[in-house]
Order: sequence, then structure tokens, then C-alpha cells
Amino acid sequence: MNFHFVTIFPNLVLPYFEDSILARARNSNLISVDCVSPRDFSEHKHKKVDDYMIGGGAGLLMKAGPIMDALSSLGEKKGHVIALSPAGKPFSNNDAKRLSKHENITFICGRYEGFDERVSELAVNEIFSIGDFVLTGGELGALCLCDAISRHIAGVLGNENSLDIESFEGGLLEAPSFTKPNIYKNSSVISAFLKGNHAKITALKNQMALCKTRYFRPDLYAKIAKIKEKK
Amino acid sequence: MNFHFVTIFPNLVLPYFEDSILARARNSNLISVDCVSPRDFSEHKHKKVDDYMIGGGAGLLMKAGPIMDALSSLGEKKGHVIALSPAGKPFSNNDAKRLSKHENITFICGRYEGFDERVSELAVNEIFSIGDFVLTGGELGALCLCDAISRHIAGVLGNENSLDIESFEGGLLEAPSFTKPNIYKNSSVISAFLKGNHAKITALKNQMALCKTRYFRPDLYAKIAKIKEKK
Repeated sequence: MNFHFVTIFPNLVLPYFEDSILARARNSNLISVDCVSPRDFSEHKHKKVDDYMIGGGAGLLMKAGPIMDALSSLGEKKGHVIALSPAGKPFSNNDAKRLSKHENITFICGRYEGFDERVSELAVNEIFSIGDFVLTGGELGALCLCDAISRHIAGVLGNENSLDIESFEGGLLEAPSFTKPNIYKNSSVISAFLKGNHAKITALKNQMALCKTRYFRPDLYAKIAKIKEKK
Repeated sequence: MNFHFVTIFPNLVLPYFEDSILARARNSNLISVDCVSPRDFSEHKHKKVDDYMIGGGAGLLMKAGPIMDALSSLGEKKGHVIALSPAGKPFSNNDAKRLSKHENITFICGRYEGFDERVSELAVNEIFSIGDFVLTGGELGALCLCDAISRHIAGVLGNENSLDIESFEGGLLEAPSFTKPNIYKNSSVISAFLKGNHAKITALKNQMALCKTRYFRPDLYAKIAKIKEKK
């Protein structure tokens, strides 16, 4: 999988691939990462890429031209083009799985007040949001997507079984987990976990996952309940 | 505001503060950032901080001890302790605003399959989720929170009016925005935006924000409709 970032701040993107799991994935050629900057395509003498909003409004907006030209410079290898915007559809683990089948993905990272709406109309395949909050730019959101997608590429995670038990598998939050020591600062591991009856532990974990989802995320729980009803 | 990150990968966190808006905020002493690694508090000879899950399960879990000791090392300045987990409450722009009033915030960033549940019980003030997807670690989520919170600290954004018109102000998504040129690749700016009648433009933008929210995020729209009904 090749990830391309259209960003005027490559220094906010590239260091994330220089340590831990994604550095390993990159070194093993499971993923590749590069950045292309709209600044390199600005016709302005000071390489400006932003301008005032037409019709008024505080703050500056990234112009369509330099972003579109940066995209074009990628040619065929731009692949699937994703933009990040609070107005996008909420990104989910199912999207991460689906997108991991692509060969090339390009993220457009806006700055300032975002970018000219015509970029979305002309060049973007999907617009995602990572939550109901605003960031200083699209880079962090794009990194989140890239990280979540990479985990689903074969070989990136050391232990692929991790994918089967994690949160959102089956639409549930993960049950609480514990590691040694059995008692830490007077707080004990759930005693059934210590008894080694794995069928019992699995059933208990499943029940706890259901309870946790029902309590913390009634919206997710409602979806599960609906699916069960249909069966 | 002082941000502290409890992480075994400081290299995935610190470079984000070395460019753009947050670098400027740091240079102006509006925010400070530091990392403390649980590895420095491991009693294991190879500085291991993870172990198998009690009761079975794929993957490794971060132990409670090294994380708790890293937290303790911050003393009083640890302030408000936040953990990131898919089971947390969805982080919103209102949380960002509220948290920007704190003097110290500490983020606990899990890795592997997360951390021992007892850390949450013993030391965490709030648990947030940034979306229904799974990341290789808590660092990106913590950076998202940190970025969203920092924007609400006085002086961090160049133009504070930006905060008033952005997405989620008033519970709405932002209206589409355009900048020069008026026509780009046969695609024109909305013509009313060009006519300079600011009252009309504001009314149109508000209407577009409503439509956009109703179409893309019926859940947000329902909240607005409810508030209007009460009035």
C-alpha cells in the first residue's frame, strides 16, 4: 500500500513513520509514505497557497489550484483520494478494513479554514471525519486513517489474532483486560480470569463486552440488538 | 497550559510540536509539552512494560506498575489525567473548550492491546474516544485532543474569530467556502457570494450549514431541532 499526503507540513506527517509498528511496516515494504506540497505548485511569488474567503468570513482558505496541481503531479498513482473534514462521514473500523485493499491512497490535508469546496467536487472520492471536533489541520486526521488502515494490511501487526478480539469486532467494545501482578495496589484482577477455565472466561468476557457497550455506547448496542432481532 | 504525555514512543509525539501553529504556541510559551516513558520505571532487566493477558487472549497488555509510576513521577503537575480508549466517551469540541481551562493535562497513551484496566480505575479522570476505529497506540488520539484543546487557548490561533464560524459552533457543520479564482476548471463560486451583500451571504451560509448538517449528519441536526423546539 502506498500512502500519499498532500500537505504543506510534511514535517508533521513523516516523523510518525519513523518509530514503532509503522516504521517496521515501512522498512518491510508493506507500506510506503510520501508527501507532496501544494506550495511547490503555487504561482505566487512567496509560494502562498491561501487566500481570503469569497463573500467574507474570518480566516484564510487553501486555494483549489495548488492542491489540484499537487494531486495531478501524482498521476495514476494517486489512487483513491480521501479528504478530511468535520462534515465527512464518521470514519469506522469497517472503513479501515475496506480501504486496506487499495494499492494507493492519497490524503488531502487542509489547513487554515480548510480548502476551497471545489477541490471536493472535482477530485475527492471520499470525505471522512474522525470526530465532532476541530483540528489545526487535516494532518492528524489523515495519520489516524493511515494508522487504522495499515493495521489491516497483512503482516503489519505482529500478531494477526489481535484483530479478531479488538474493539468493534462484532460491533462491541472490548472487555476489560488485565496483566500481572494479580493484585496491584489492593486492586485485584477479576477472580474468574485466574482460574484457567477458558470457555468460562470467554463467555464472561463476551458478557462484559456487551455490558460495557450497552453502558458506554448505547448507540452501538442498539445496532447489535437490531441485528440479533433479525436473526 | 502544560501537556504531559505518558508514552513509550516520545518520538511519535514531540515532532508534532515542531512546526506550524503548535510550534508557535510552544515558542510563545502558551503551551508546554513533555513526555515521560513507562519504560524508565520498568523493573524488568530489558525494560519490558508489557505482559500476557490474564485469562488468555491474543497480544500483550501494558502493565499497571510502570504507567502508574510514570504518572507519580509527575507529582502535582500531572493535573487532569486523560486516557484514550475506544470505550471512552466520544471527544467533542465542547470538551476541547472545557479542557482548555486546565493548567495541566496528562495523556496516558496505551500500546499493544492497551493497558491494564486497573490504571483507569486508580488514576484516570476521563476516558475519551476519538472514533469507532482502532489505532496502533494512543499517541495519535492524544495528539488530536491536545491540538483541539490548544486551539481554544487564548493567543494560539492567529485569528480568534476563526473559532466563531467553524464547524460545531451552534452544533452545525460549516457551510462550503470558496476563495479566488471565481471560476476554476469550469466550476464557479456560488454567485450570491460574489455580490457583496453580507447580510444575504450570512443568511445563505446559515441555510447551507443547516442543509449540510441535515444531509450529512442527521444526528447533529436532530439535536439542533430539539433545542429549537424547546425555545
